[in-house]
Amino acid sequence: MRNDAYEALLAHVRETAALESVAGRLGWDQETVMPRGSALQRAEEMAAMEGVLHARRTDERIAEWLDAVEPEGAVAKAQVARVARAHSRATRVPADLAQEIARVTSVSQGIWAEARAADDVAAFLPTLTEVIRLKREEGAALAQGGDPYDALVDDYEPGMTGADIAAMFGALRPRLVALRERVLGAAKQPAPLEGNFGSEAQLRLARDVAAAFGYDFSRGRIDIAVHPFSSGSGNDVRITTRVSESDPFNCLYSTIHEVGHAAYEQNVDPDYLLTPIGQGVSMGVHESQSRIFENQLGRSEAFTGWLYGEMRDRFGDFGIGSARGFFGAVNRVRPGYIRTEADEVHYNLHVMLRFDLERALMRGQLDVTDLETAWNDRFKADFGVAVDRPSHGVLQDVHWSVGLFGYFPTYTLGNVYAGCLHRALRADLPDLDARMAAGDPSPATEWLREKVQRHGALMAPREVIAQACGFEPSPEPLLDYLEAKFGGIYEV
Amino acid sequence: MRNDAYEALLAHVRETAALESVAGRLGWDQETVMPRGSALQRAEEMAAMEGVLHARRTDERIAEWLDAVEPEGAVAKAQVARVARAHSRATRVPADLAQEIARVTSVSQGIWAEARAADDVAAFLPTLTEVIRLKREEGAALAQGGDPYDALVDDYEPGMTGADIAAMFGALRPRLVALRERVLGAAKQPAPLEGNFGSEAQLRLARDVAAAFGYDFSRGRIDIAVHPFSSGSGNDVRITTRVSESDPFNCLYSTIHEVGHAAYEQNVDPDYLLTPIGQGVSMGVHESQSRIFENQLGRSEAFTGWLYGEMRDRFGDFGIGSARGFFGAVNRVRPGYIRTEADEVHYNLHVMLRFDLERALMRGQLDVTDLETAWNDRFKADFGVAVDRPSHGVLQDVHWSVGLFGYFPTYTLGNVYAGCLHRALRADLPDLDARMAAGDPSPATEWLREKVQRHGALMAPREVIAQACGFEPSPEPLLDYLEAKFGGIYEV
Repeated sequence: MRNDAYEALLAHVRETAALESVAGRLGWDQETVMPRGSALQRAEEMAAMEGVLHARRTDERIAEWLDAVEPEGAVAKAQVARVARAHSRATRVPADLAQEIARVTSVSQGIWAEARAADDVAAFLPTLTEVIRLKREEGAALAQGGDPYDALVDDYEPGMTGADIAAMFGALRPRLVALRERVLGAAKQPAPLEGNFGSEAQLRLARDVAAAFGYDFSRGRIDIAVHPFSSGSGNDVRITTRVSESDPFNCLYSTIHEVGHAAYEQNVDPDYLLTPIGQGVSMGVHESQSRIFENQLGRSEAFTGWLYGEMRDRFGDFGIGSARGFFGAVNRVRPGYIRTEADEVHYNLHVMLRFDLERALMRGQLDVTDLETAWNDRFKADFGVAVDRPSHGVLQDVHWSVGLFGYFPTYTLGNVYAGCLHRALRADLPDLDARMAAGDPSPATEWLREKVQRHGALMAPREVIAQACGFEPSPEPLLDYLEAKFGGIYEV
Repeated sequence: MRNDAYEALLAHVRETAALESVAGRLGWDQETVMPRGSALQRAEEMAAMEGVLHARRTDERIAEWLDAVEPEGAVAKAQVARVARAHSRATRVPADLAQEIARVTSVSQGIWAEARAADDVAAFLPTLTEVIRLKREEGAALAQGGDPYDALVDDYEPGMTGADIAAMFGALRPRLVALRERVLGAAKQPAPLEGNFGSEAQLRLARDVAAAFGYDFSRGRIDIAVHPFSSGSGNDVRITTRVSESDPFNCLYSTIHEVGHAAYEQNVDPDYLLTPIGQGVSMGVHESQSRIFENQLGRSEAFTGWLYGEMRDRFGDFGIGSARGFFGAVNRVRPGYIRTEADEVHYNLHVMLRFDLERALMRGQLDVTDLETAWNDRFKADFGVAVDRPSHGVLQDVHWSVGLFGYFPTYTLGNVYAGCLHRALRADLPDLDARMAAGDPSPATEWLREKVQRHGALMAPREVIAQACGFEPSPEPLLDYLEAKFGGIYEV
């Protein structure tokens, strides 16, 4: 009888997962191939899907099934726990609010994209105001008297609160700021990569590197989009990238980053396909996979050594005379405007800025009309340069336009987890550098698949990192790694 | 109170239409961009969508709303009539049968594509057997004691039966066969187009011609697929085409054909968007739009005169020395194997073959193991040549693999309707040839938009043709047109 309840519950959530996968594909379509004139119709379609999903997630039978099940074994227990968590959250958000968020955020993304292209903050503010109002309403409904922002963070990183994040950022910030100052003040600065690099050749290289990092093209594809992203789970995990002819590292490292996300989804145990644990467990753990692919592996001296030769073969001489100089160019530290193009030293400062602003917005401590000024003031203070236009400042990220408040801090949490995983896998794989120097990061990507990715959401976020590493996660491994790497490059 | 029921009914079916649009986009995705390894997961997703749609279409409140409404005006009456018809059909098909058909036909298309590529009928037969079993079951559930095939035909062409079609085909066949014999026996035969025509240039030409025929790229896009098709409604209507470097007419006329379908969907009154009447009324009327675009307009002497100059500009000299010779090459009559490449004289003979075979399959008068032999025997009798391989015969069309039984006859019905519409629009537009000779078919496409397309499904299929033409539809205008055109080209 209780087993029947488990089977019924799993069948229900499996069908829900299939419908979520459909909705996800619709999102991919919207950002890659959708005709421009379809936006309003698409908003209706997304709202209808959201209505269906909300009805399924709040189905009254779920509570009955949850009451009746007595799951046995780790897998069944994890499945039930994920359902219970999702059901509890879904029932707290009214259906009409969920549908309104879906409808508004479907249109708002297009408005953001146009405002960004025109550097016109005013054109985006009415929409952003509406998104913030709806997300605060959602956060309040979820928090039931608690902090609305905490409730939104918990959506992306189960178990984390704004206070946890603030504490972690507090531990990171002093050593990061000190490292930044030492590096920017160093006498010897690496030369940047300059020149023109053809789009087609860049995309071919990105595809080859994606394959080297384990991306399975038979279960995915790479397209061009404004903002690189990974989308889907299991056997249909698609990524996007972008190309700048003057900056091939943009395309290349965006791709490696998204391949990290995609590998996590593609490598989950196939037995979990379209079930609650059949996907990455949290945004923080997800980001740990993308960041370790991109930075600790992709920007390592060993891998960039191979990449240097490969790029010279493909693009000819581009004015950098040694692998060591190329390693410096890849890891050049500059206070740039754009988070997704930021070096590893500055990246977390970008995230801290967004965290403080969005937390204040959600708590009603910052008005949206003051947001641009607050952004620009904080940027000047943290980065030492003034924002020159909104597309380099408050309009640069897609996240807020689609209601992703509470998401940004998971980027830095991902870096912290990546630091931990990197320390652990280096201890297990003493010959990794020799393989990466031959363009083969597979010992590391296989280690991550085995230790982290295949488990999907079987364990809690912090738990999967702790068991993979053999120690409790903390910011120190990341800080030690950054100080050693950039201290070496900048000889400080 | 009764008005409330109408509003509630419309809100329900509008959301259903939005979800149908999502499912349609998923079908587009599957045939254009989906990674190969995603097929099984996609089948789960399609089945889940079908489950949702079936539940919505059979919602018990629909019967209550239908009982309560008293629609006023032609639009409201048409909306209610379409809902009543769809609801009646949906409630007759059990949910598990509908889901099983969705699941099987999602996978079966891939199996068909592989079997066609390998010319391996045996690899496809088990799947086809299963599809036929399910569609016979569906037909029987729909027909409730009547002819299962009639019930399936009625899905695509409301009001038509197998007997109606057999009678129409009986009226067409003698004059078609006689015309075919005269043409193939003519002393003077036009020379074919030969040479190699670059894919990129072909696609550019196809896009330009699509725009000339009124395709709105801001609400659509063109991609490559195995089988050309049009998909979607309202503001997101996508078409596909295919390219053969030795036969540019394949890409060009497939594109014009699909633009005819797409124009019908794009040009429906925007007030009807995502409502029951917000799409083409039947497959026969749909096909009348694609066929009149492709043949009566696109293959006319006036338009091919413009096309001749355009192709010489774009591809250089290709060995045809006059516009008149080019017109002959475009309209060359040959007993080819492939329906979608057939000339206007043979096309309807292809359809008649499929109609007789699929009707026999559905009525249990032909076993699937005898299908290939039956196809080959009939083809030899009708076309005078033996099928040389299955991909040129029984495996050539996608339709049966996805369960589209009862669909083929609507192709010829579309030709009959196109013949009627062409007679009527020529009478209204005496200067059309002068405009088409300048590459501009817009007087005709605007006439069709005004007289047919904007109405969507406001009127019954035969009614929309009759009011557009000002006379009752019959096969004679098509036969008169074919005899005049091909009698002229072949001087018979």
